[in-house]
Amino acid sequence: MTASVFMEDLDAFTYRERLATGSRLVIVPVGSVEQHGPHLPLTTDVLLARAVSGRLAEAVGALVAAPIVYGYKSQQRSGGGNHLGGTTSLDATTMIAIARTLTHEFARHGAERVVFLNGHFENYQFLYEGVELATRELAAQGNDLEAMLVSYWDFVDAATLDEVYAGSFPGWEVEHGGVLETSLMLHLHPELVDLGRVMDLPPAELPPYDLLPVRPELTPASGCLSSAARASAQAGRLLLERTTTALAEAVESAFANRMSATMLQ
Amino acid sequence: MTASVFMEDLDAFTYRERLATGSRLVIVPVGSVEQHGPHLPLTTDVLLARAVSGRLAEAVGALVAAPIVYGYKSQQRSGGGNHLGGTTSLDATTMIAIARTLTHEFARHGAERVVFLNGHFENYQFLYEGVELATRELAAQGNDLEAMLVSYWDFVDAATLDEVYAGSFPGWEVEHGGVLETSLMLHLHPELVDLGRVMDLPPAELPPYDLLPVRPELTPASGCLSSAARASAQAGRLLLERTTTALAEAVESAFANRMSATMLQ
Amino acid sequence: MTASVFMEDLDAFTYRERLATGSRLVIVPVGSVEQHGPHLPLTTDVLLARAVSGRLAEAVGALVAAPIVYGYKSQQRSGGGNHLGGTTSLDATTMIAIARTLTHEFARHGAERVVFLNGHFENYQFLYEGVELATRELAAQGNDLEAMLVSYWDFVDAATLDEVYAGSFPGWEVEHGGVLETSLMLHLHPELVDLGRVMDLPPAELPPYDLLPVRPELTPASGCLSSAARASAQAGRLLLERTTTALAEAVESAFANRMSATMLQ
Amino acid sequence: MTASVFMEDLDAFTYRERLATGSRLVIVPVGSVEQHGPHLPLTTDVLLARAVSGRLAEAVGALVAAPIVYGYKSQQRSGGGNHLGGTTSLDATTMIAIARTLTHEFARHGAERVVFLNGHFENYQFLYEGVELATRELAAQGNDLEAMLVSYWDFVDAATLDEVYAGSFPGWEVEHGGVLETSLMLHLHPELVDLGRVMDLPPAELPPYDLLPVRPELTPASGCLSSAARASAQAGRLLLERTTTALAEAVESAFANRMSATMLQ
Amino acid sequence: MTASVFMEDLDAFTYRERLATGSRLVIVPVGSVEQHGPHLPLTTDVLLARAVSGRLAEAVGALVAAPIVYGYKSQQRSGGGNHLGGTTSLDATTMIAIARTLTHEFARHGAERVVFLNGHFENYQFLYEGVELATRELAAQGNDLEAMLVSYWDFVDAATLDEVYAGSFPGWEVEHGGVLETSLMLHLHPELVDLGRVMDLPPAELPPYDLLPVRPELTPASGCLSSAARASAQAGRLLLERTTTALAEAVESAFANRMSATMLQ
Amino acid sequence: MTASVFMEDLDAFTYRERLATGSRLVIVPVGSVEQHGPHLPLTTDVLLARAVSGRLAEAVGALVAAPIVYGYKSQQRSGGGNHLGGTTSLDATTMIAIARTLTHEFARHGAERVVFLNGHFENYQFLYEGVELATRELAAQGNDLEAMLVSYWDFVDAATLDEVYAGSFPGWEVEHGGVLETSLMLHLHPELVDLGRVMDLPPAELPPYDLLPVRPELTPASGCLSSAARASAQAGRLLLERTTTALAEAVESAFANRMSATMLQ
Repeated sequence: MTASVFMEDLDAFTYRERLATGSRLVIVPVGSVEQHGPHLPLTTDVLLARAVSGRLAEAVGALVAAPIVYGYKSQQRSGGGNHLGGTTSLDATTMIAIARTLTHEFARHGAERVVFLNGHFENYQFLYEGVELATRELAAQGNDLEAMLVSYWDFVDAATLDEVYAGSFPGWEVEHGGVLETSLMLHLHPELVDLGRVMDLPPAELPPYDLLPVRPELTPASGCLSSAARASAQAGRLLLERTTTALAEAVESAFANRMSATMLQ
Repeated sequence: MTASVFMEDLDAFTYRERLATGSRLVIVPVGSVEQHGPHLPLTTDVLLARAVSGRLAEAVGALVAAPIVYGYKSQQRSGGGNHLGGTTSLDATTMIAIARTLTHEFARHGAERVVFLNGHFENYQFLYEGVELATRELAAQGNDLEAMLVSYWDFVDAATLDEVYAGSFPGWEVEHGGVLETSLMLHLHPELVDLGRVMDLPPAELPPYDLLPVRPELTPASGCLSSAARASAQAGRLLLERTTTALAEAVESAFANRMSATMLQ
Repeated sequence: MTASVFMEDLDAFTYRERLATGSRLVIVPVGSVEQHGPHLPLTTDVLLARAVSGRLAEAVGALVAAPIVYGYKSQQRSGGGNHLGGTTSLDATTMIAIARTLTHEFARHGAERVVFLNGHFENYQFLYEGVELATRELAAQGNDLEAMLVSYWDFVDAATLDEVYAGSFPGWEVEHGGVLETSLMLHLHPELVDLGRVMDLPPAELPPYDLLPVRPELTPASGCLSSAARASAQAGRLLLERTTTALAEAVESAFANRMSATMLQ
Repeated sequence: MTASVFMEDLDAFTYRERLATGSRLVIVPVGSVEQHGPHLPLTTDVLLARAVSGRLAEAVGALVAAPIVYGYKSQQRSGGGNHLGGTTSLDATTMIAIARTLTHEFARHGAERVVFLNGHFENYQFLYEGVELATRELAAQGNDLEAMLVSYWDFVDAATLDEVYAGSFPGWEVEHGGVLETSLMLHLHPELVDLGRVMDLPPAELPPYDLLPVRPELTPASGCLSSAARASAQAGRLLLERTTTALAEAVESAFANRMSATMLQ
Repeated sequence: MTASVFMEDLDAFTYRERLATGSRLVIVPVGSVEQHGPHLPLTTDVLLARAVSGRLAEAVGALVAAPIVYGYKSQQRSGGGNHLGGTTSLDATTMIAIARTLTHEFARHGAERVVFLNGHFENYQFLYEGVELATRELAAQGNDLEAMLVSYWDFVDAATLDEVYAGSFPGWEVEHGGVLETSLMLHLHPELVDLGRVMDLPPAELPPYDLLPVRPELTPASGCLSSAARASAQAGRLLLERTTTALAEAVESAFANRMSATMLQ
Repeated sequence: MTASVFMEDLDAFTYRERLATGSRLVIVPVGSVEQHGPHLPLTTDVLLARAVSGRLAEAVGALVAAPIVYGYKSQQRSGGGNHLGGTTSLDATTMIAIARTLTHEFARHGAERVVFLNGHFENYQFLYEGVELATRELAAQGNDLEAMLVSYWDFVDAATLDEVYAGSFPGWEVEHGGVLETSLMLHLHPELVDLGRVMDLPPAELPPYDLLPVRPELTPASGCLSSAARASAQAGRLLLERTTTALAEAVESAFANRMSATMLQ
């Protein structure tokens, strides 16, 4: 039997056995199909959410669901805007429905805990709504499944930021196609990164509000909100390790006394 | 004819005339019915969004729509959680529908610009979706209405924070029923504030993720995420003035060359 | 502690205590933003539903929820039509969702009875649907919350009509911006009424069917369906008293043996 | 080629030809599956709406669409309540969707006018919403289809009421399974009426509000809101003739100058 | 009391008694309003589904619900396409809602089994979804209603096909307005068939994929996908008998041990 | 610049350039997460749809979108049923929304043709609905995007079936986890197939109707509807080649005169 934690690699019999005998925890990676500048692939968010989910699953004895590939619309202040070619997004009600239904489906499988591991800023509130509805409905039926929602970058600590950015962290709000994502991709999928195409522009200066329809001229020519010029595979490795460790601690802490001792070894 | 900028004070004939001859800008205050601790009323967010909208409307020659009273579900990390009695909320699809429909309605009235002025953190993404759908639909019909979405606290600058919090600003993420909202209420609606009931607890320490169903024990007993003990009417006046000024500049800047010179005087 | 029956004036702690120790009845005023001629404000229906709710709440020991401000589309035969500027309305599915969700929310708070007190004719069927769905869902979960739906004018008796209209009551179907609403507003909010602007036109003669798209020429120039010329504050006071008394009797009668004796004193 | 005005009797080629060369008017009968006491069949509303539509179509050169069989939930004050066995109803959003879609479909066929002829009180507002949405959408696409919504009993005049009820007309609000419907059925479908099973009870006395969940004891044992004992086929014939004539005049008047002279002969 | 199995012929009292004392099985005929060439009426699918349902109900002691008249959009490869005049269809979500709601309604009446008997190919998956949702919801409430979904032509066996088509059965995929439907109509409703108008064209040759928007030129001029020239009332009688027998056996087999012995006599 | 046809491998700049200068055709692979017995992985349908899409894209100069991973509920007669652990599915309205939105998104990118390449039987009708709605909406806006919907197995010809199954083709209706899928997987992803775990059971014998709730005992213990024992990588290669060739011809034929000569070389 394969040791893979990815549902995608498992047949149904193996999946059922692993879920029944493990931590009964399923991690759902949530990405997007979104432009990330000229140097990163369109599915960067999927790849990163999936990779972090895999590391986390190994750490806490969980399984990783097939990813939610398409995400909510890119917003100008966090992802450049949904007017850009290549960015391919779903509406809010669809995202909500996906999160709601998958929560119900994993509960049906016998999962007792579901973690939605988000890799695309704009998804969060819609995942929240879907999971809120599903857990309320499940509770009304006597099923006490618990769900956790995380965006992986919320687990990068200040020390790591200092180390990676050498004190010049521009703020999460402009981390789109920048040092974090590019470094992680260099570490995990170097064949999909073309550092030579990085456009080394200053961080985007976007106003503290949204305008709709979007004014395209406010998005930098690269589509990125900060430069990836300082990215490195080494920084990626560091970010991945630290983030995974912090996430594993958070999961263990949140579900302590609820998961059996063995499954967290 | 009344000089009020509030649609609620106007008859339809006056409203139509004012809209046709003014800046063709309607500001929609968006609040919530949400617990704000033992010292603030449940509709604090409505009252503050409405008051800021009024000041802004006077500054830029706009009208203020009747408020959206009920908002999206309170989340534990920003509002204490929706499990608390008194907090009374709508689902995501309803919030989206309200924002979408009102955008269409004001376009039908002849408005050329709509500002959704948000007073409840959790509303933002759902207002965004509603307005995104409406402006796209309007554009497809040849109507080039423009919408702006703002949360008013995003216009409080660092200097004002320093002044108000005397260097101890705990972060927006725990500003719920804290110094900002209480000060503004003391300035605007002192009769609805009972400072004697403030529970002077340390700022809430919430983890960087959401758990659903909510674990009630993570919310402080006050329902507030930080203490309002330092609040004062004077700070409220300062916050209101600075915020309004910054908002007015943002509106004028965003719609410059699009609004006639006279309307912005 | 304030003696106000309005949720809007209460903090969450007070609200919870009052709800738990009172009649466990919440009254939800439902209005609209709708043109009411040149002499009445756009939110007339909100103001009247809210005022009647307040009087009723005092009579039966209930609380008044924050109002549902925006209502269903104005129809030509009952409100002049939704094509008129100023009238700002929601679609049916949104109204249904609001009524459904609020019923669930007040049930979550511990209310055992909810009254939707309607001030805008066109809302009724959509409130009904929302409440029907919610009470059915609640019943399936073992919660036996009961809801009552009323339009306040259905509690004006024939004697009062005779007295107020001096025998010339034109029928409820053309009471829009007419004597009833104007009198009530003169009694409750005289500062928002401009009797000098009343257009004294004969009652609208509308056919017994609806045409869509609306033919604007069928609506009188005033937007009102009958003249408010006979309105007076005195008639408003009379209407309010009689209506409130009849409503209180209806509530007590409907919920007799279900509400404790004390709460109805 | 059949002379039938019913789409149900026509093949598609004939239907297309008839629609293209006639008044381009389609009448959609809307009924319900609802208990009508022990003496009338469950589909009484369908049969009556369909029959009136047929007479009207013959009078104005129109076609009759296949009926909308299932209707909105029976309400206690107008139909006895939806808790009764046999009554089989759709939710509001489904009724809205049906009316909206059919309006679009008949527009696609080339109809220029659609009349929704309602035979079940509770349907009206939901048909209205569906048609309102569809006509607005069609108008945005440059299609100026016009729709009329009627409930057939609104075309029974006072003189006929006097004649039929001999002065004892109990009001439309209790006309459910009473003299009107029973007489029309006796005239049109006598084989489906069993007068011997009429329960001759006094008119229901229902309060001027709705309670949900419904209190079954408020509905008379018959399920009817007034007695059909005075019904007769002769009254049915009279009612049908008068109603049809009044409806035809209304249609011609509403669409005058819009329908060609010949089609109304 | 009438012996009719059709709900449409029954009053509510009789319906309730029959349902309570019979097999507690309701059969819902599902049709469409769809062009079926120049020789068959638009409601052919309704008439056939209704007739088969009636025969089946008589065989197994069931009742027949009022039909679902309008169906899902005609698709080019199975019904000629929804662009054709006369074809009048609902969207998927509406069909789903109708099936879902009716399942709940018959469960409320006390039915323990519901059969959706489909007469229009395109309906099937949407009926499935509606029934899947309803039965899941009912199960969560402790109601173990069982539903069966059938398309009646799936019960025509190979021997009958050989007999009817004399070995030239062109495949179900082109049976639209062809020998099967025309023969059944000749047997059941000869007055609505005009054999003289049959267009004797070769079977349609449609590619194994769908194109949208539809390319109208791919549909034969008749709107039918195969010729009805070989149709006969005799074949219709044979098809009806064989199909009904096979359906009755399937129902009895599916619900054996679940329906009382008497009800299947 | 990579020569990959997969959007997942491309950055946004490259994607936009390739789309603008190529055949303006995007192929969307649609799969499912569904049990496929003990020998195939849960995402078999995703992998196969993606692989066929890649071959097709190379043949006709198209791009392949990121896959739709989760599909519609597995049905017992085509996929064993949605009650089985591991099978993880979306509701109909969600599938419809995904197909509708993605069609709009690729139209926004400038695609002129979209092919939905389906790898999971149950998806088809819901993809159809989504694409039907989107193309209609696009047409109303003047965008004449064309969509094609295919299930790849509809392009396996009779000769190939004979060759692969040696005359014992059991019918598509039981091809779930059988020879076709297993052979393709052996050819494309042998590392994910474990032939030693194939359960060599006779083809499932399922009745010609659906029962809901599903009766689990009707699904074979393997979850497959026919045996994969005869599967081979060689058969997989043959199937892939023949299918791809037939699909390429279908695409070229369908869009002939609409795609430029060069792009099809």
